[in-house]
Amino acid sequence: MDAVILFTPLAGVFALIFVGVLAWWVIKQDPGTARMQEIASFIQEGANTFLRREFRTIAYFMVGLAVLLYILMPKDSHVEIAVGFIVGALLSMLAITIGMNVAIRANVRTAQAARTMPGKALTIAFRGGGAMGLTIVAFNLLGISILSILFGVGPDNPERVSMLVGFGLGASLSSLFAQLGGGIFTKAADVGADLVGKVEVGIPEDDPRNAAVIADLVGDNVGDCAGRGADLFESGSDNLVATMIMGLAFMNPIGDFPGYGFNAILFPLLTRSIGAVGAVLGVMVVRGSGKRNPMASLNLGFLSTGIFSLGAFFLLANYVMHDMRLFWCLCLGLFGALASALIVQYYTGSGARPVQEIAEAATSGPGVNIIIGMAYGFESAVLPKILIALINVAAYMIMGGGVVGFFGIAAATLGITEMKGIIMAGDAFGPIADNAGGIAQMSGIGEEVGRSADVLDAAGNITKAITKGYSMSTALMTSVVILFTYITEISRHLNMPLTEVVYNPKFALVTPINITGIMIGSTIPFLFSAQAIRAVGRTAYKVVEEVRRQFREIPGLLEGKADADYARCVDIATRESLKGMILPTMWAVVFPVAMGLIFGVWALAAFLIGVKIIGATLAMFMFNSGGAWDNAKKFIEDGNLGGKGSDTHRSAVIGDTVGDPLKDTAGPSLHILIKLQNILAITLLPLFLEHGIQW
Amino acid sequence: MDAVILFTPLAGVFALIFVGVLAWWVIKQDPGTARMQEIASFIQEGANTFLRREFRTIAYFMVGLAVLLYILMPKDSHVEIAVGFIVGALLSMLAITIGMNVAIRANVRTAQAARTMPGKALTIAFRGGGAMGLTIVAFNLLGISILSILFGVGPDNPERVSMLVGFGLGASLSSLFAQLGGGIFTKAADVGADLVGKVEVGIPEDDPRNAAVIADLVGDNVGDCAGRGADLFESGSDNLVATMIMGLAFMNPIGDFPGYGFNAILFPLLTRSIGAVGAVLGVMVVRGSGKRNPMASLNLGFLSTGIFSLGAFFLLANYVMHDMRLFWCLCLGLFGALASALIVQYYTGSGARPVQEIAEAATSGPGVNIIIGMAYGFESAVLPKILIALINVAAYMIMGGGVVGFFGIAAATLGITEMKGIIMAGDAFGPIADNAGGIAQMSGIGEEVGRSADVLDAAGNITKAITKGYSMSTALMTSVVILFTYITEISRHLNMPLTEVVYNPKFALVTPINITGIMIGSTIPFLFSAQAIRAVGRTAYKVVEEVRRQFREIPGLLEGKADADYARCVDIATRESLKGMILPTMWAVVFPVAMGLIFGVWALAAFLIGVKIIGATLAMFMFNSGGAWDNAKKFIEDGNLGGKGSDTHRSAVIGDTVGDPLKDTAGPSLHILIKLQNILAITLLPLFLEHGIQW
Repeated sequence: MDAVILFTPLAGVFALIFVGVLAWWVIKQDPGTARMQEIASFIQEGANTFLRREFRTIAYFMVGLAVLLYILMPKDSHVEIAVGFIVGALLSMLAITIGMNVAIRANVRTAQAARTMPGKALTIAFRGGGAMGLTIVAFNLLGISILSILFGVGPDNPERVSMLVGFGLGASLSSLFAQLGGGIFTKAADVGADLVGKVEVGIPEDDPRNAAVIADLVGDNVGDCAGRGADLFESGSDNLVATMIMGLAFMNPIGDFPGYGFNAILFPLLTRSIGAVGAVLGVMVVRGSGKRNPMASLNLGFLSTGIFSLGAFFLLANYVMHDMRLFWCLCLGLFGALASALIVQYYTGSGARPVQEIAEAATSGPGVNIIIGMAYGFESAVLPKILIALINVAAYMIMGGGVVGFFGIAAATLGITEMKGIIMAGDAFGPIADNAGGIAQMSGIGEEVGRSADVLDAAGNITKAITKGYSMSTALMTSVVILFTYITEISRHLNMPLTEVVYNPKFALVTPINITGIMIGSTIPFLFSAQAIRAVGRTAYKVVEEVRRQFREIPGLLEGKADADYARCVDIATRESLKGMILPTMWAVVFPVAMGLIFGVWALAAFLIGVKIIGATLAMFMFNSGGAWDNAKKFIEDGNLGGKGSDTHRSAVIGDTVGDPLKDTAGPSLHILIKLQNILAITLLPLFLEHGIQW
Repeated sequence: MDAVILFTPLAGVFALIFVGVLAWWVIKQDPGTARMQEIASFIQEGANTFLRREFRTIAYFMVGLAVLLYILMPKDSHVEIAVGFIVGALLSMLAITIGMNVAIRANVRTAQAARTMPGKALTIAFRGGGAMGLTIVAFNLLGISILSILFGVGPDNPERVSMLVGFGLGASLSSLFAQLGGGIFTKAADVGADLVGKVEVGIPEDDPRNAAVIADLVGDNVGDCAGRGADLFESGSDNLVATMIMGLAFMNPIGDFPGYGFNAILFPLLTRSIGAVGAVLGVMVVRGSGKRNPMASLNLGFLSTGIFSLGAFFLLANYVMHDMRLFWCLCLGLFGALASALIVQYYTGSGARPVQEIAEAATSGPGVNIIIGMAYGFESAVLPKILIALINVAAYMIMGGGVVGFFGIAAATLGITEMKGIIMAGDAFGPIADNAGGIAQMSGIGEEVGRSADVLDAAGNITKAITKGYSMSTALMTSVVILFTYITEISRHLNMPLTEVVYNPKFALVTPINITGIMIGSTIPFLFSAQAIRAVGRTAYKVVEEVRRQFREIPGLLEGKADADYARCVDIATRESLKGMILPTMWAVVFPVAMGLIFGVWALAAFLIGVKIIGATLAMFMFNSGGAWDNAKKFIEDGNLGGKGSDTHRSAVIGDTVGDPLKDTAGPSLHILIKLQNILAITLLPLFLEHGIQW
């Protein structure tokens, strides 16, 4: 078994080494003309300045909260939880810093390659994204396995695994900040740049005369790239930590279930390690050529990872866990990842009916465009959620029902999250391609890059849609597993058999107290989204004012004779978005604490169910309506229904503006929210048990 | 006690007689010039044609379902349930036909009065609306009390009260059709008329050259007036039926609770009868004068009803129920009605920050206007829901907790719904004032009416906002009570003590099956809204095409030399909206049936919780964002931020268009949906118990 334990940190190191190789390979590519390098350096500087200031803000909160945890947590674990909390936050920040910096360097090189070797452009963009994906997976694995060793988790002291919850909480909270801060920045800069540039002044996208254009490109990196990285770092660590802690409940026999022993705790680490190796394989396989359709190449990458994982899962279930039912649960997860990606592609892909109908609706004006987009957005949440619900039931039944069914659901979730590395590579590919296009435009080589940038862009849109469908499903499934972990932790703390906890009268679905819990919980995603969206609106307003001011006050700017002050726009967007990320995060923390103290640990579970179920649905609506409006606009820009510059196009642009903060700010933050509050509840459980009012 | 029983039908008859008096009084007012009468007759004809065709469509479904119920229901009650089902549907249709026809006659007379005696215009509009409110309350009371007598409900056969569920189901289903059909019609005609008239051709609102303008005015009657009436008829009957059936569980002692005897079943009937008498009083008090602010007069009406009810509640609790705790629960309900109306006024009133900020956002274009409106819409769902949750907890605690607490929550709900009659009068007032304005515009007396129409319109907007806040809270509270009724019915059918049912392991909150139930349930409101909104979009598209065709093909129309073919627009909107109402209703029925059969009666409760909690939140979002966009537009039209015709105004109009189908089609239908599915579950419970898979 010792050899098995070593597999995890080794897989982490292996992934990390591969990140180094990717970074080295990307950097040695041709960075293009002097003008391109100058623009890239602006972006790089802006993005790193943003991250530095963002991390400083986050650090204040994290240190304060670490001290609070140290004071409030039980004396047998308060050091470990506070330390884990800090390590989780630090690793999250470090992972996205590394990932983003590789991606930024890949941007300009992708643009350059697009001029000469379109096939190579795909490879550079994908490898740049791969560095982000693998950094995250590697840091997840290394952080958790090293902390486990430091905390002395082992067959003799398995219960020490519960100290890892601090790591999960630190990672979640820091990621929520990063996702929100980056998400507000990117959309405010985007909306701000478009509103003045395209609409008021009538200059093209990414025109160097627009003062917000660098902020916009910086936003793609700190929002779409770093923000998404934070999202995935969070879900990766929460999922691992939660299933490991939950494993505690399945070490020993329950009824006629014999128990997995210490393997119950190792199982999640091993599946994730398989995922890491599979992702390396997948990234290596993707390689563009001038002739092939880029999607064919990307699909080959996904497929390689999938097949490798299936084989490894079989070995793991059969030879380590000695329970083939787990293999079927893992497969169920893989199937869920695939199916939900397909559903999202239907609702947001430009070939299918929804986007077509939304685009046609734009011929009747922006109002109808938005109405039809909302309608499809609402509808798009239906199938994926029913799918996840049925996967849960199926996994539960494969394990024969009862509380052992929880472990089956956890296994299915591990199956679905296991594709993380390769999917993240595909996702980071999108913003890199986007940025490459922007840099080309600003450097005046837009014409040369033309067609091959479009091909990359189209591929990027598909991978983005896949990631979104995927990340929604993983977030919802993970959030259910974390709820189970919460329940197993109640059982452990109260020294009450798990069955007694699950079927406890206090957990009755239909008591007024629990219904109240669900009801209050269900308001949280709405409150949170409202604040996040409003922060985008307010920040965008500030950016708009600044761009207008520069056009007004800098003589010769509109004629292209003077330079815009890009740094000021970046600075304003940074300041406002950091301000905007604080309030929603505060509420996200305050509400579950208040619920745990006033309504106790049982109703808190009901609250958490309310949060996650409404949060996931809302996030799906936001992602898909946003994506569909975006693609309806692109469909029109491709020359359909009047094409660029027509009234129909203007209507579609308005729909896209509405969708932007939904799909790139509020939506992804909701993913983090629905898990963060749960992991917070697990962390503070001892506190709530001691001081909360138990109804 | 016999005297007490008679109070209910007498109160119903009293209210009905008063409806006759109001109708007589309205009709004897001056109907204005020949042109005004002609236009009014167009509207009247269009609205009645719509209702006739709508009712014909509904009748097919109702007869088919009544036959199904007769076949499927247990033999000891199948006749009563099928008959009750038909009676409920018929009374619902009859009530809204009467109410709408009085309202239509009040429109033109209000317009005429506005020319000469502004104070009287208020009185006419309010009494016209009062007829709708009182018809609904009267038919609720009469239908249920007469059926109770026919079914032989009495102290000796209390359990026969459960047969009333057929009445509730018939009323709900027919109301859902009516609300949806009318809601789709009104918004499609509205959007269609505006899109071509205001935006494309550039003629003012309600201009007679616009072929859709009569359809638009018809829509105000069949959607806002008849549709809202259907909504309230449904919630009135569901609430009464559900609390009466629930009363069965509280007749006999539970633990140290002594039981209310047959009074437990009479209690809801008595509170509603008090409400009927109070509403008559309130409507009588409201009387406009030329000098007074109309809101002062309306407030006096609300206040009179409230004070009368408080006194009567005290007597009821003390002398009939012999339990003063019920008085406090009833008061809690009244307080909830007040508080939620205030919250909605903050979020949608033009004086407060949200509408101001939404209007200001319109200066940055339609996109930002919509984004900020959505954000406030999301936020607006938070406080009312927490408020309702806390009222539930408070009522539960007043009764000392445990299952007896359920009865306290039911009492609070009766307290909140009791204001129905007077509130509905205020709500129907809005469309009457609206229509009066439209008729004045079309008859060329717009100038004369001018200022006094504006005053009425402003008062109408406030009453609308109040109704919406109120109806959201009642819908959510009622839906919780109906859930409790479902649970008491499980207890009765299984012959299992209520406590054993509530704390049954099968009702555990955190089992995968129940979580699946909540998850699937939570998708229903999204599916339903998507279809309702899309139906508006599609119908509007057809209307737009027709109006464009008429401008193209009828020579001299734009110059005002030829008449538009209004009837054709009405016909098209009618046909399409009746088509549009069927699909969502089908899904609303099919899903709970499938859940009950596949997942059994326990998980069905979880499903219902998912439906109502997400449905209520979504409805709040829709109502309030829609209302806020509307008022932001009006705020700009009042000359702020550039006023009518400015770019800012155009942006705000787009926001208003987006809000229309949300606040007037999908939102109100969700209210019905969240209760309909529950009453359906209660009706089919014997079927599910026998044939469903119980996990």
